[in-house]
Amino acid sequence: MAAARPGPTTRAPALTVRDGLARPGEEVLATEEPLEIRLLSGGRRYPVAVTMRTPGADFELAAGFLYNEGIVKDRSQLRRVSYCLDAERDGAQHYNIVNVETSGPVPVADIQPLERHFSMTSACGVCGRATLESLTARGCRPLADGPLLQAEVLQALPDELRRAQAIFESTGGLHAAGLFTNEGALVAVREDVGRHNAMDKLAGWALMNGLLPLAGHILVVSGRSSYELVQKSLAVGAHTLCSVSAPSSLAVDLAREFNLTLVGFLRPGRFNVYSAPHRLAPGA
Amino acid sequence: MAAARPGPTTRAPALTVRDGLARPGEEVLATEEPLEIRLLSGGRRYPVAVTMRTPGADFELAAGFLYNEGIVKDRSQLRRVSYCLDAERDGAQHYNIVNVETSGPVPVADIQPLERHFSMTSACGVCGRATLESLTARGCRPLADGPLLQAEVLQALPDELRRAQAIFESTGGLHAAGLFTNEGALVAVREDVGRHNAMDKLAGWALMNGLLPLAGHILVVSGRSSYELVQKSLAVGAHTLCSVSAPSSLAVDLAREFNLTLVGFLRPGRFNVYSAPHRLAPGA
Repeated sequence: MAAARPGPTTRAPALTVRDGLARPGEEVLATEEPLEIRLLSGGRRYPVAVTMRTPGADFELAAGFLYNEGIVKDRSQLRRVSYCLDAERDGAQHYNIVNVETSGPVPVADIQPLERHFSMTSACGVCGRATLESLTARGCRPLADGPLLQAEVLQALPDELRRAQAIFESTGGLHAAGLFTNEGALVAVREDVGRHNAMDKLAGWALMNGLLPLAGHILVVSGRSSYELVQKSLAVGAHTLCSVSAPSSLAVDLAREFNLTLVGFLRPGRFNVYSAPHRLAPGA
Repeated sequence: MAAARPGPTTRAPALTVRDGLARPGEEVLATEEPLEIRLLSGGRRYPVAVTMRTPGADFELAAGFLYNEGIVKDRSQLRRVSYCLDAERDGAQHYNIVNVETSGPVPVADIQPLERHFSMTSACGVCGRATLESLTARGCRPLADGPLLQAEVLQALPDELRRAQAIFESTGGLHAAGLFTNEGALVAVREDVGRHNAMDKLAGWALMNGLLPLAGHILVVSGRSSYELVQKSLAVGAHTLCSVSAPSSLAVDLAREFNLTLVGFLRPGRFNVYSAPHRLAPGA
C-alpha cells in the first residue's frame, strides 16, 4: 500500500471575511498529527508517549524526548530509530509511530515515571520546591559560570529565529526553538505546533549528531518560558534561554537554581534578565 | 502550620535592560505550580493527573479536567471538591492537591485511559482519523446547526477578552479562555499559564454551576487552536471557537467533523472561518 506520509503543512478550504466581505478560499495550516514514541529495550516494547506534533524531524523528536526525560543518556545508547513497520497498520500510521531501539537495556526504574506520568508526586510531594529537587535527584547539576553575553547579540536573535522559520511563514501558526552560538550565529532551528516538541526535536538533533552537551550555546523559543522549557534547556546544557514573552514563576525558580540565564521580553531596545545576570557583559 | 497559599502572581527580582542600560528591579510573574488532581471514587483514590497551572480556580480546574476527559459526566456526580488535608504534608502542598469525590463509583474503564495516557493507541491506531473516531466512540456527537453569528459581534470579542484578563495585565504572560453569549456578552473568563487549563477551569465553573451544555455560546482563546482546545470546546457544547491566531490541521478536521464553527486570525477588520461557515449571518 502506498504510504500517505503527512507533511508539515496542510491545505484546507476556509472562508476569509475581510471588511465585512466573505470570500471562499484556501489556507495553509500547520499539520497536527499524533506521534507515538516507542522504546525497544532489553527485548521489551514500551509505548512511552503519544504527543500531538507537526510531522517532520520525527526521529529527532523521539530521540530528544527520551533524552530530555532522562531515559536515553548518551548517543551510544541509540541502536536504531525508525518508523514502525507493523504489517497490520496502514500507510499513514507508519509515519505516526517511531521506534527507538537501545543498544542495551534501559533501567526499568527510568521508564516507570513515564508510564505513570503522575508518579512523581508520591515520591517528592507536589510543590515547586519538590519539583526542583526531583531534578537534582535525576542528576541535574548547576551550570558553570560564563561565557559572557553581549546585549546586542541577544537583541538580534528573535529576528534571526523568525527568518529561519520556514513553516511559520506559510501558516502563521508554529512555535520554534532555535539554537545559537554565544556569538549569535544560528546553528539549528526546529518548528512544531507544540513548543515542547520543538525543543525535543532540537535535543534529538544534537544527540544524534554527537553535539551534547550544548555548552556555550543560547536557546531561543518563540513563546513563553515555562518550567518545562527551562527543564529541557538544562537537559541539553545551554547556558541561556531567551523568549520574546514572559517567563512563569517556576521557570525563574528553576533557572536560578541551576544557574541558567533566563531572558524574557526580548524585544527591540529592551529585555529582562530573570536569573544568572552575571553572564551579561559589562556595558550592557 | 500556617499554610502558604500560592497566589496567581509572584514578584521576582529582574534586571531590565533598556537601550543598553541595565537596571535592577522587580517584575510580576504569572505563578506556575504543579496541581495534582485526585479522584476519590467507590472507596478508591486515583491520582489521575499532575498539571502545571496558575493557582486560582483550582476546584474548577479539577472538576473541569475530569469532565473534559469524560470521567465526570454530570454535576450530580460531584459529592465534594476540596484541597487535600493529609496531615503529613506541609501547608503549601495542601493547595497543590485537589480531591474530587464522586457520589457514586465511576466506571474503572473510564479512568484507565488517564492512568496510562498512551493507551488510546492500542485501541484505535495512531492517526488523525482514528483520533476523531475515538471521540465518537466516547459519545461525542455533531452539534446542531445554528444559531447565526454576526461578524461584528465576533470582531469585538478579542478586545473584550483582553479587557477581562486581570492577571495578564500585570504579567503579560497568561493564556485566557473566555465564554460569551451568541450576542457577544462576556459570561466568564479564566486565565492560566496553560491554555488547556484555562479551558478546563471554564468547563469546571460551568459544570459546578449547572450550566452545561453551553449551547448557544461562543468560546474565545488567546493562543492558537489545537486539537485539544477543539476537543474541550466540543465537550462543553459551545457552537463556536475563536482565536486570534492560527488553527492546526487536526483542529480544523475535528471542528468540521462535529459541526463546530472554528474562527481563526480574528483581528480588526478580518477573520477566517475554517468550518461550519453556515452559522455566519448573511451580509458578513
